[in-house]
Amino acid sequence: MKAITLDSSQDSKLLLTDVQSRALLPGEVRVQIKAAALNHRDEWCRKGLYPNLKDGVVLGSDGAGIVAEIGEGVDYDWLQKEVIINPALNWGANQKVQSEAFEILGMPRNGTLAESVIVPLDRLHEKPAHLSWEEAGALPLAGLTAFRALTFQGDLQAGENLLVTGFGGGVAQFAVQFGLALGARVSTSSSSPEKLERANALGVDFTFNYMDHNWISKAFEETNGFDLIVDGAVGDTLNHLIEVAKPGGKIVFYGATLGNPSKLIARKIFWNQLKIMGTTMGSDQDFINMLSLVCEKRIVPIIDQVFKFDEAEEAFDRMRDGKQTGKIVLVP
Amino acid sequence: MKAITLDSSQDSKLLLTDVQSRALLPGEVRVQIKAAALNHRDEWCRKGLYPNLKDGVVLGSDGAGIVAEIGEGVDYDWLQKEVIINPALNWGANQKVQSEAFEILGMPRNGTLAESVIVPLDRLHEKPAHLSWEEAGALPLAGLTAFRALTFQGDLQAGENLLVTGFGGGVAQFAVQFGLALGARVSTSSSSPEKLERANALGVDFTFNYMDHNWISKAFEETNGFDLIVDGAVGDTLNHLIEVAKPGGKIVFYGATLGNPSKLIARKIFWNQLKIMGTTMGSDQDFINMLSLVCEKRIVPIIDQVFKFDEAEEAFDRMRDGKQTGKIVLVP
Repeated sequence: MKAITLDSSQDSKLLLTDVQSRALLPGEVRVQIKAAALNHRDEWCRKGLYPNLKDGVVLGSDGAGIVAEIGEGVDYDWLQKEVIINPALNWGANQKVQSEAFEILGMPRNGTLAESVIVPLDRLHEKPAHLSWEEAGALPLAGLTAFRALTFQGDLQAGENLLVTGFGGGVAQFAVQFGLALGARVSTSSSSPEKLERANALGVDFTFNYMDHNWISKAFEETNGFDLIVDGAVGDTLNHLIEVAKPGGKIVFYGATLGNPSKLIARKIFWNQLKIMGTTMGSDQDFINMLSLVCEKRIVPIIDQVFKFDEAEEAFDRMRDGKQTGKIVLVP
Repeated sequence: MKAITLDSSQDSKLLLTDVQSRALLPGEVRVQIKAAALNHRDEWCRKGLYPNLKDGVVLGSDGAGIVAEIGEGVDYDWLQKEVIINPALNWGANQKVQSEAFEILGMPRNGTLAESVIVPLDRLHEKPAHLSWEEAGALPLAGLTAFRALTFQGDLQAGENLLVTGFGGGVAQFAVQFGLALGARVSTSSSSPEKLERANALGVDFTFNYMDHNWISKAFEETNGFDLIVDGAVGDTLNHLIEVAKPGGKIVFYGATLGNPSKLIARKIFWNQLKIMGTTMGSDQDFINMLSLVCEKRIVPIIDQVFKFDEAEEAFDRMRDGKQTGKIVLVP
């Protein structure tokens, strides 16, 4: 089958090639991919910034498709089902944190940027009926991460003030959409007026351009501070977020694209009783709860652009350059 | 009445002097102090490191005594009652964080280092019967801070691994005692072998000397990491605490005697789903719950040393130099 693999000998570090698919083990299924989507994780694999990288592995964590083959012990009813795939493998029983066996589909295990992917049956969920293939394929990893950040970690309540930084990224767009669906007053920030326009179209309450030196005082005036801030950047902007958090508020971050902060104002954190929390992906229960919300509120992922497999390099470059608003989708 | 006031014209910044006591307002009571105790806050006032300092104010947040006079509207039954004082004024209704009107007894309002103190009736609680005056007077501020850090913020569960850093300080000793009473496996750290001896005598499970360069790996070997860490130092040791936290664990800090950390390892925080939380004092409900635990488990505060009011400078210096194990008490 055709698949996009990591190949460090290529300039692009990608190779669209024929990969020999293996036989199914008991309890596994083969899903024929109708649409897959990119995450920063895929780009980090390409940059060599992920641990234990292996050439020849099929990249891709996000995918939706049709069950094409079932392994021993899997009910025949699953055949031909339209499904989306939970890319979080072996989370374990502890809701607070993933187990040591935790793994994400697409490295070191073959992922979704292929004509088909093999996963354990328990990774499958029915495709939400209101979504196209491209929309369903765009949902899993970023949707799961955003949902856990808001709910299990952030305990977001209706009426609370939510700030989602960096609108345009996958997790950020879902955090905005889910935040609105959960009844929060949602603000989002970006350096791009175009991206903030898109956020306004979704119905957010406030947008802030963080290139504006006054954005912190403006945000405080407009919102009186945020109960919850969801961020994927960290770096020295963490201290700005500490400034705009409401006393008693929470900052949940799911990544650190700007790296480590060079300082941290401790006094403000203890006097204001702030919580700074890290989050990664989500548990199986988080995934189930996320799908419920998506179906109940008929939430539709924003698609930035759809590429064919042979345009993979262009798709990855678009993610690397941060040009996208919404998810970058690839179809076989 | 005799009282210890802040006086910046003195070398010691303290003056034991006669203070004119005012008449009671409706709803207020005058408590004749039997024992008061010091907190770092008193020393910070002396150092000029607290906001809005005013010469002539009576210092002291901790106290226990006998109700000597009642204002209009206060039931006569309160007269002669043996009480301890909750030094947290105007917390407000939000359990998550204190209101803007929040104030701590002992600056700017006259405090407990006096023959008597005036407080609103609702700051009084019955003195736990199993405690001496000195023990009861030592409990309020540090006990409240430790209790909230462990429970409301830290959500400590029986059987969990707790690390309390800096044994010897008031909050740390209560965090150790309350942690044991709540059924946690308690570890504590110090640079002083003598203080760790005292901790062992309380029945802690493990002690670590943080001057030992291997303490982090030892702690991990012995405990498999901590579910909850209660710290008052921060500074660059925060990154050590991040190392010894169990994945999914929490670090709650109630002060930052070592100042701000010069960096923060963000990746470890989000991958391990850690929570870094600030806390200050506690709500009225926290105080009530703390007293319940103290009475139910007959917890007895550790008294470092008892001073007379005219030895106040010596008492303050002992706190400044960090020589104490347990609370420094002053009696009129």
